[in-house]
Amino acid sequence: MAHIALNNENLPGIVGLLDYSHATALPLTDLANVLLVEDNSLTRTEREIIAASVSYWNGCHFCHTSHAAIAMAHAGAGISFIDDVKKGANAEITDKLRALLTIAQHVQQGGKKVTVGDIEAARRVGATDKEIHDTVLIAAAFCMYNRYVDGLGTWAPEQNEAYVEMGQAIAQHGYGVAVAEPQP
Amino acid sequence: MAHIALNNENLPGIVGLLDYSHATALPLTDLANVLLVEDNSLTRTEREIIAASVSYWNGCHFCHTSHAAIAMAHAGAGISFIDDVKKGANAEITDKLRALLTIAQHVQQGGKKVTVGDIEAARRVGATDKEIHDTVLIAAAFCMYNRYVDGLGTWAPEQNEAYVEMGQAIAQHGYGVAVAEPQP
Repeated sequence: MAHIALNNENLPGIVGLLDYSHATALPLTDLANVLLVEDNSLTRTEREIIAASVSYWNGCHFCHTSHAAIAMAHAGAGISFIDDVKKGANAEITDKLRALLTIAQHVQQGGKKVTVGDIEAARRVGATDKEIHDTVLIAAAFCMYNRYVDGLGTWAPEQNEAYVEMGQAIAQHGYGVAVAEPQP
Repeated sequence: MAHIALNNENLPGIVGLLDYSHATALPLTDLANVLLVEDNSLTRTEREIIAASVSYWNGCHFCHTSHAAIAMAHAGAGISFIDDVKKGANAEITDKLRALLTIAQHVQQGGKKVTVGDIEAARRVGATDKEIHDTVLIAAAFCMYNRYVDGLGTWAPEQNEAYVEMGQAIAQHGYGVAVAEPQP
């Protein structure tokens, strides 16, 4: 049970909240589409890995598993990918994504934790200003989405398997207010 | 100097970032307008106090001082109001706002820090589900805005006086991409 009376208690995580508050759902989904779906110098898989990693560090099970499932769909990977994302900088990723994940982790800890050294390290492995900007804003945005989902006490399916269908739907169609929910 | 090359280094805090990235500026300002400007059961002063308080707890000088200056303009208060906001639950506020600030502070610490007791305490002093929802989302959103502003190393005027004119302009016209900047 969420902390407030939602319109539909069956809808998990942010899905129930977007359904509860349409006025805020619109800019929240617009922001997700600009950051994670529209054309960008980082791949959609890379951006979803940043989103899923920040959600994992924030302890938000719904957001971590959803976004890791979307990254898995983009990458054409198997279900073990969802847990692999939790390895962070130790996962098998490019040097550029590893450097950007360090920036994202510092953003998650607090904006002032990002150092000039973090930025220089990302530049040395080819990150552009736009990629650094987008990494910081994706990490910051998931510090919002995660707190929205957990601060209102929404429920989340436990098993990774429950998120696969939703991950494929979002990978194909982008973010919308009415997305397929995970299977309870 | 920000961590990335902005289009206009004279624009402080989030103003320079909104100018740098128009695609993300639109949903970010839309969200601020829905949460802080449009009609709502909480007053605009109360909502700006929640935004300013979360920014203070996150150590974001630009966002704290800007939103406290906007709250000051709404309240018709003097400039000491900007520092008074830092008192949080010890400030001279209603019992309802005090209870909502406790929820906001727990959201700032992490979504799972919000307890059933926090919600019940807010309900006992008259907070509605919509007010609790909006408090959680305002607090969560400022965990994003604050990290965006500080994670990219933007500059901010030091003195409270530099924010008064911008505070009045936003109180009057709402949030937009092209807002008056504080006087350096």
